[in-house]
Amino acid sequence: MRILVLNSGSSSIKFQLFNMPSAEVLCSGLVERIGLENAKINYKTANNNIEKEVSITNHKIGLQLIADYLLDPNLGVITTASEIQIVGHRVVHGGSTYAETVLIDNEVKQKIEKLTALAPLHNPANLQGILVSEDIFKQAKQIAVFDTAFHQTMPVEAYKYAIPNSFLDDHNIRVYGFHGTSHKYVSKKAIDFLGKQSSKVITIHLGNGCSMTAVKDGKSIDHTLGFAPMNGLIMGTRSGDIDPAVIFYMVNSLGHSLDEVNSLLQKESGMLGLTGFSDLRDIESEAEKGNVSCQEALKMNAYRIKKFIGAYVAAMNGLDAIVFTAGIGENSDVVRNLVCSELEFLGIELNQEKNSIRSKEIRDISQDSSKVKILVIPTNEELEIARQSFNLIS
Amino acid sequence: MRILVLNSGSSSIKFQLFNMPSAEVLCSGLVERIGLENAKINYKTANNNIEKEVSITNHKIGLQLIADYLLDPNLGVITTASEIQIVGHRVVHGGSTYAETVLIDNEVKQKIEKLTALAPLHNPANLQGILVSEDIFKQAKQIAVFDTAFHQTMPVEAYKYAIPNSFLDDHNIRVYGFHGTSHKYVSKKAIDFLGKQSSKVITIHLGNGCSMTAVKDGKSIDHTLGFAPMNGLIMGTRSGDIDPAVIFYMVNSLGHSLDEVNSLLQKESGMLGLTGFSDLRDIESEAEKGNVSCQEALKMNAYRIKKFIGAYVAAMNGLDAIVFTAGIGENSDVVRNLVCSELEFLGIELNQEKNSIRSKEIRDISQDSSKVKILVIPTNEELEIARQSFNLIS
Repeated sequence: MRILVLNSGSSSIKFQLFNMPSAEVLCSGLVERIGLENAKINYKTANNNIEKEVSITNHKIGLQLIADYLLDPNLGVITTASEIQIVGHRVVHGGSTYAETVLIDNEVKQKIEKLTALAPLHNPANLQGILVSEDIFKQAKQIAVFDTAFHQTMPVEAYKYAIPNSFLDDHNIRVYGFHGTSHKYVSKKAIDFLGKQSSKVITIHLGNGCSMTAVKDGKSIDHTLGFAPMNGLIMGTRSGDIDPAVIFYMVNSLGHSLDEVNSLLQKESGMLGLTGFSDLRDIESEAEKGNVSCQEALKMNAYRIKKFIGAYVAAMNGLDAIVFTAGIGENSDVVRNLVCSELEFLGIELNQEKNSIRSKEIRDISQDSSKVKILVIPTNEELEIARQSFNLIS
Repeated sequence: MRILVLNSGSSSIKFQLFNMPSAEVLCSGLVERIGLENAKINYKTANNNIEKEVSITNHKIGLQLIADYLLDPNLGVITTASEIQIVGHRVVHGGSTYAETVLIDNEVKQKIEKLTALAPLHNPANLQGILVSEDIFKQAKQIAVFDTAFHQTMPVEAYKYAIPNSFLDDHNIRVYGFHGTSHKYVSKKAIDFLGKQSSKVITIHLGNGCSMTAVKDGKSIDHTLGFAPMNGLIMGTRSGDIDPAVIFYMVNSLGHSLDEVNSLLQKESGMLGLTGFSDLRDIESEAEKGNVSCQEALKMNAYRIKKFIGAYVAAMNGLDAIVFTAGIGENSDVVRNLVCSELEFLGIELNQEKNSIRSKEIRDISQDSSKVKILVIPTNEELEIARQSFNLIS
């Protein structure tokens, strides 16, 4: 069965075509800068890797372009659009409504649109992708896989804020959590690796956005991101946790507008704000050369991850494994080393040598004596979306 | 040596007169509702406990009234004002300038005034108390004991926010931490109790304001309150930690003003916002009767404390003792029980029977098998201020 996975952003569409259930990737790629100058498509198959600048004024044209490539007699991997039986869509916000992957109907589309209030940057683009996909792949089943769904198992003490109840009851203000598809994918892999019925796992997703999940017996019971993907860990350009009093002070005493502060905390903070660099590899090499800001930022970043590890150990009253995943988690031995140092009390002991080996495989980098496994597991959100879509239909 | 300890709030003055170094309390009391209708004084000695409504239009009149009582031939405990050799003042914000208790001179007063920007509700009242006290107790040495001082030992990874460096460098935005006098007092007691040279202690101060400190070898290395006394734990009326995105949403999507949100998070949130009750004893008895909001709020409150215990265990890579203190910490066996349950992995095992005993003494309520001591230690900020003042002068 051919399943096309689409991840539609405000000016981009990431895609991957799977043959399921074998999980073979038939092609993948990215349309970016939709509606902007220098829009381009990248289209990859086993034998081709094409990058091309082309005018792409809207999502419909972008997705049509993808379809054209898929059907191209020379580059394509299908012969008619109807060969694609399922289109699986990444949808960022499913609110409290969707704890599971769902077949998209009018009600689902309306709900996704309604949830735009909670994810103004993401849900409209996701919905746009669905509408265009319905138009082009008329015979395919359209399926929505929500970033928030995995976290719907969180208990009230983890998802509720200590503000008047009306804000939850009337305005749905609560912790939703994000990166759920990634946390679900790698936590399943970790549980398979552990081979235990009952398990306590902490998944650490470190990419552009960063988050951690406490996963007990396969279920998310707590998570660092909250109402929006803004708090918790220090991210590339986002501050993560900060005393709310700082926001009031920046406006009332320093004269910033609230929009400026919002933008500052989301786009100019985090590792960028602390170091002037946005790429972690630059920060690591600068730190190596003695740049104190970069050294401090790496320490702060690791310290915050460390504290959430402790917090989730307390929440689960135990720990079997921690999992590093996503760009930084999979590739930075420096970050992993800083995070895992001096955590022997929690049973975490890193094997330096194993940590320094680069690999694309799932691997255990803990000491033999470590009570807690330290796993590096490459994430694959697209495959997880394909799998969930496949399972829903089969 | 007679040491008068003053804690001046915006409309109140708490006072206690010590004979040092014996720490004998000669008298204590409270002037409240200064500048308001029904102002009153409470004045207590070994033999008297007087409550009296009286017009008190400003701090000077309030402190003069205290002095009059102290010198009263029938009720007083001194015969001339000059018998008071030291007045120790609680000052909330010492910024990054004061890591220690100091003798007050003009420079100190100017600095306290300057720090008003960081503690607009507290520092002006504290300074007012100093100025009036200088006037009335002319021969006494005036000493400032700062709430923030104990936390000045925090390392950069604990005190710095992940926002552009200029906000720390130019505007002093960082974690300061509060309740330092209490955390210092009870952590010293705990370390004495443990009788260990090197120690890892977590102090949990649960009163109207709530905070926790990680104390390693007697030094604060991390703390739940930040730039202002607003974040971290769930408090009586304060939300504690919350995703900053909620603030932006309340203003931009729900139409609240920023001042309304600030007030909402400080005065209408926390246990009050969750339950409608501001007194924990009411919340506990309602929970007992089956009130679900109250049960949930108690669970949320304990869960957050639990997570900070875990976080600080990770920060210190170990734990010798946790300490409960202040009104709720000393008196609520319900809260202590909820916090300590299911933390065996961290070596925390509560003895239910010991927990239920009411006492004013320092006590260990852990199981004999518990690796971590669970201590209840009555705090005494006034005595700590007297001691620090005495030590500075002697």
